[in-house]
Formats: sequence, C-alpha cells, structure tokens
Amino acid sequence: MLPWLRTLFRFSHPFRPALRTNGMEYHLFPADTLWQFTADVFQALGIPAADAALAADVLAYSDLRGIDSHGVARLITYVDLLQLGRINPHPHLKIIRERGAVATVDGDGGLGLVIGPKAHDLAMERAAEHGAGMVSVSHSNHFGAAGYYAVRSLPRDLVSWAMTNSSKAVAPLWGGVRMLGTNPIAIAFPGKEEPPIVIDLATSAVAYGKIEIARRKHEPVPEGWCLDRHGNPTTDPDEMINGGALLPLGSDRTHGGHKGYSLAAMVDILCCVLSGANWGPFAPPFAVHQEIPEREVGKGIGHFFGVMDPAGFRDPDDFKREIDQWIRTFRATPPQPGQERVLIPGDPEREAYELRAKSGIPLIEGVVRDLKTVSKRTGVLLPLP
Amino acid sequence: MLPWLRTLFRFSHPFRPALRTNGMEYHLFPADTLWQFTADVFQALGIPAADAALAADVLAYSDLRGIDSHGVARLITYVDLLQLGRINPHPHLKIIRERGAVATVDGDGGLGLVIGPKAHDLAMERAAEHGAGMVSVSHSNHFGAAGYYAVRSLPRDLVSWAMTNSSKAVAPLWGGVRMLGTNPIAIAFPGKEEPPIVIDLATSAVAYGKIEIARRKHEPVPEGWCLDRHGNPTTDPDEMINGGALLPLGSDRTHGGHKGYSLAAMVDILCCVLSGANWGPFAPPFAVHQEIPEREVGKGIGHFFGVMDPAGFRDPDDFKREIDQWIRTFRATPPQPGQERVLIPGDPEREAYELRAKSGIPLIEGVVRDLKTVSKRTGVLLPLP
Repeated sequence: MLPWLRTLFRFSHPFRPALRTNGMEYHLFPADTLWQFTADVFQALGIPAADAALAADVLAYSDLRGIDSHGVARLITYVDLLQLGRINPHPHLKIIRERGAVATVDGDGGLGLVIGPKAHDLAMERAAEHGAGMVSVSHSNHFGAAGYYAVRSLPRDLVSWAMTNSSKAVAPLWGGVRMLGTNPIAIAFPGKEEPPIVIDLATSAVAYGKIEIARRKHEPVPEGWCLDRHGNPTTDPDEMINGGALLPLGSDRTHGGHKGYSLAAMVDILCCVLSGANWGPFAPPFAVHQEIPEREVGKGIGHFFGVMDPAGFRDPDDFKREIDQWIRTFRATPPQPGQERVLIPGDPEREAYELRAKSGIPLIEGVVRDLKTVSKRTGVLLPLP
Repeated sequence: MLPWLRTLFRFSHPFRPALRTNGMEYHLFPADTLWQFTADVFQALGIPAADAALAADVLAYSDLRGIDSHGVARLITYVDLLQLGRINPHPHLKIIRERGAVATVDGDGGLGLVIGPKAHDLAMERAAEHGAGMVSVSHSNHFGAAGYYAVRSLPRDLVSWAMTNSSKAVAPLWGGVRMLGTNPIAIAFPGKEEPPIVIDLATSAVAYGKIEIARRKHEPVPEGWCLDRHGNPTTDPDEMINGGALLPLGSDRTHGGHKGYSLAAMVDILCCVLSGANWGPFAPPFAVHQEIPEREVGKGIGHFFGVMDPAGFRDPDDFKREIDQWIRTFRATPPQPGQERVLIPGDPEREAYELRAKSGIPLIEGVVRDLKTVSKRTGVLLPLP
C-alpha cells in the first residue's frame, strides 16, 4: 500500500470511528453532514443561500480529498472574521478593468470561498468566448484549495490555472524572514477514460501544517524545511513557528531554492500586483490572532485564474485521448527500488475521495471542538456522529 | 561578492583573457563576433538572412547572460542537424487551429530558434488584440533559453510565459528512469525604474550541465540531484550520465519532489499534448549521438507561449511602479546569517550581461574547438580573439 494511502487508512478506517493515532483522536462525520452544517453556518451569518452553498462546496472539496488543512478545519476562522465584520457577507463583485480575454475583479471584501468561484466563472466565460480567459482578483481572502478551481472547470472541458497569495510564511532564498505566502499553483487536465491529472502544489518546500504536526508529536522536522527567527536553518518545529520561516520549494541554492522562490514571486505578482491586492509580506493574515502587516499596499489578498479551452488548440477528443496515453505511459514508469509505483498528480486525493465519500471525513478532536464552538456561536446544530 | 558573481569574475575577468580555472581554459570573444559568426553559419546552411539573424539573437541572449549551456556552445548541434537534413531551413509555419486568443502552430520542422520567436510573435499579436494570447507549438526543436522569450516581450510591455519540453532526462518522483525533459518555465515582469524581474527555471532539481562539470572535475555531486541506471540515488556523476536520471525539483517526497514532477508534467502537456508534439519520453533527442525514442506520438518537440497585456488588468504605469515597489521590498529582505543579500530573479543574468557586454563572452576550449569545426564545415570565418 502507498505511504499516503496507509496514513489515510490509519485515520479513517470505517470500523474504528474513534482511534488514538499519535495522540490525536478523531471522529468520522458523513460528508453531507459537514456540508449542510457549513452552508447553514454561513447562512446564519447573513450570507445568501446560494453563496453559502458555494462556500460549503469549496470546503467539502478539501475534506473529501484528504486536504484536511483546507476544509472545515478553517470554518471557525471564517466565522471569526465574519463576526468581526472583517468579511463582507453581501459583496458586489466588480470588474474594475477588462479587455477581451482578460479582466480584473474587485471582490468587495467578500468571502474568498464565494469570490473565488464567481471570478473563476468569469474566467471560464471569457475562455468560452475567446479561447482563453485570464482574471486577476483583489480584495479577497482565503479561497480554499487552489485545486478546487482546477477541477471545477473539467466538466466544461476547460483547463484552469488557479493561484493565490496568502499571509507571509516563506523566506525568499538567502532571506532570513517571512516575505511570501505558500502561494500555490493548481491546474488540471481532463482524460477521456482515465481520471484527470490534478496538479495542486504550494511553492514552499513543505506545508505549514507539517511543522505543526511535528510540534504536536515533539519530533524534529527534516533539514531543508525551515529557518528559525534568526534566519538559521533549524529542525526544531517550535523555532520555525516562533517567528521563523518556511523555505521555498528546492530548500537551498544547491537544490533549487531559487526556483521555489521564483515561482512564489510569479504567483504573488499575477495574483496581487496585477490586481491591486496586498503582495508579499503585506498580505493580511487569515487567522484573527496573527499580526496585521505594518502597511497596506492594496486591497485584501489576490487570486489569479487562467482558463484555456483545449478545443481552441486541438480537437478536444484527441486531446483527452492523448492525456489518457500520457497517464498510462507515466503510470507504467519502472519505479525506483523500494517504491511500488509512480503516481499521477491527483492520485492521492482521488484515492482519499473514494474512501471518504463512503466512510466519512475524519476530524480530529480539536477540529470537532472548534465546530462545536461555531455551533454555539451561530445557533446551528452540529449533528454528532 | 555573490557566489554567482564571483564565479563569473573568475571566468571573465577582463585583464586575464585566458585563464585556467578548474582545468578549463577559456578565451574571450566579443559578443558581436559570435553573433555575426552564428548568423553567417545559419545563412551558409541555407537559412534566410532574417531567420539567421533571429536565431543568432536567441543564442546571443544566453551567451551574454552567462547561460553558457544555451548559447553558441549549442551551435554545432544545430549545424549537425541541418547538415543531416533533420532541420528544415525553409519552414512554413502553419496555424493548424485557432480561436480568438489561442492558436496551435506547426513549426514545419524548422529551427527552434526561428519557430520560437515567430510563434511568440503570434502570441503577442493575439495579446495585443484580445488582452491575452496563448500559443502551443508542435514540430519544433530546441528553441534556446526560455527566458529569451519572457524578456523579448518587455519592450512591448507584455508579460510572457515561455515553456518547452526537451529530450528525456528527469525521473518522475518514485520513478527509476528518465521520462521527462528538464521542461523550463520562464516569465518576466517589467519595472518602471527598476530592471525587470526575469524568472527562468528548469523543473529539474539541477541542470544536466552541472552533472557534466562535476564529472570533468572528478567530484561527487550533492545528494538529491540524480539517480543511477537502476533508479538508486547516487552522488557519482558518471552513474547519472550512463543511463541514470536527474531528479525533479524538490528531489524527494520529503522536500517536494512531487511538486517538481507536477510542474514538469504541466509543461509537457501544455507544450506537447495541446499541440500534438512528442511528449514525455518520446521527445526526440537534440544531440545527434543520442538514442531515438522507440516511437513517435506527435511531431518534433513542443513549446508554449502565454502572453498577457498588463494594461488589460491595470493601468500599465501603476503596474510597473508597483513592480518597482515589489523589487525594492524584496531586495531589502534581511538576509540569512552568512548571506550578503536577497536577489531578485534575473539579477545574476543581468550582472553577467553587464560584464560580458563590455568584456566579451568567455568560451572554454571545447566550445572554441567546436566553433572551429563549424567554421571548417561551413566555410564561415571565425575571427579568433
């Protein structure tokens, strides 16, 4: 069994609804229950029903695919920001500039989970009209998993890039402090018979969540993941969390850290400098307790959606059949000694989906506690499993 | 002084026109001399004057910027392929499919150094008309440094992605054999007063050229760069070169090797599956002595150009001024202990340019020998410094 899959089974085995693993107890919730709870919570906070459903879709995408950091685990933060008046429940998205295939959208301070899909819709409309549609978005906040948008265009046979900036966490190569978000890039390609290729990667060496898991387990992290508050490499998760920084993909100069830094810079500029959002270290924090940057250089955080219609390039059936061939060829790659097989990007999330859609979403104790708090604060009932 | 700059000075110090460094002697050639020689050689092989000049521009871009692997060092290979009839000196580029902002171009087997700029022109024309222009290209070969195209659109205030596949060299994560090219991604952003941000990165952990340098110096390479022919990690450059593979950016699962693999896959699909070129392990080799893949799945190799007009998103002067702010902010990043400063992507190449435009292009003995061979085979005089 694959290491990723094995981890998942450990977490979500259907016959053991609560199990201590590495000190973390979890409960299995049906995906529908969490979706309904999320939608009801957003509605209770004044968000229109259709928007609340959209936002619930975005979070459910992550929970169903094992991207636990981007699902209902974040609900309490959205609730915090809505209750503090830092998210506008009734945004009016405005196209503030446009020309043919491209446009800039001001998200009016709404929920990123709503602004994201609507701006993505606009990019898809432009692509349907012009063959391509590129939309940069300002005045938003956390839009969920970037991969959601890449996958969202597949039923229309469109290919979508999705990118976003986020609050500072990553040092540029040779820098000693946080200057960039984990700035992900996602894109997906549809197959004819094979499941799609789904690419979704943060441009940092590792996700912040992995540092937190190591801290909880009192374990060191591998070299090449992070720096301490003085800018020195460290393997102590506490030293990163207390004012240190993540390293960019590639980690150091020898292994291509300048490449991860460059990719994060590209995402930052396409999402923020193009749209007029807060770039680099000025991105507003998502969590309530995080420090607010010293100054604003734009509005909210930014996203970028770049949609292309493969039918503008090639017969769309030929394209999908060729993607099938690509997938089969790469799946048949002779593996390294000690590895079972080569994965296609998107395989782990699809395998997680197949398990979780049936067995439910495993939520650790801390997340369940947060959801109970949300339930209390909004009056929305959380049906416990 | 920066490590990169220090290396450069060692190579191109103006007062020491020939110097042994690591056993490599070099000669300084004025950039103009090499440009003229290149253009004359291509013309002597039947390429029209304007196309030959275009091709010489592309190679000179790399030589002037210290990207020694992509300049005149490759001329002999282009000459080989032209003389063997494997490159068409008179290609008629055809748009084989198009819709609004997007198009697919068949390069008719011409020189990549000519097909590249012409297809890029088309993408820029589409961007001028629609705000964006996305062009996928098949039936081409090596198009030079991807960064050339990103920089080429800056005088028009356009932002260009440039990508290409190349012959197989890189293993996908957990794979034991070569399946992907080093598949670079380039993009550049214009400043108002500051020099542009120029991003150009291979999606492998390291360039193949670095393995060759280590072999020449009889030195091991760092861990995380490559595999031997059995798919096991190795630090012996010979073991990589003799049937082994490079690792993707990120190197291993722990450090994000799945991300480099995913980026290389994205480039492969946008350049080849979209256009109908040979993807993955089926990319034809650039060098004459390399093995021809077992089958063809398309025509030649593929490129992708994605051009956007920032003026479609934002007032173009505001955009450039904000890029200036981005650059100044990142340049002012407190460096890690032991590092002098944080670079902006494109700094090393620009610093190389400033030195080389004045002092000349340092060519090692082996490259000079190849140019002499080219001179003999084409009858074009190579003025020696």
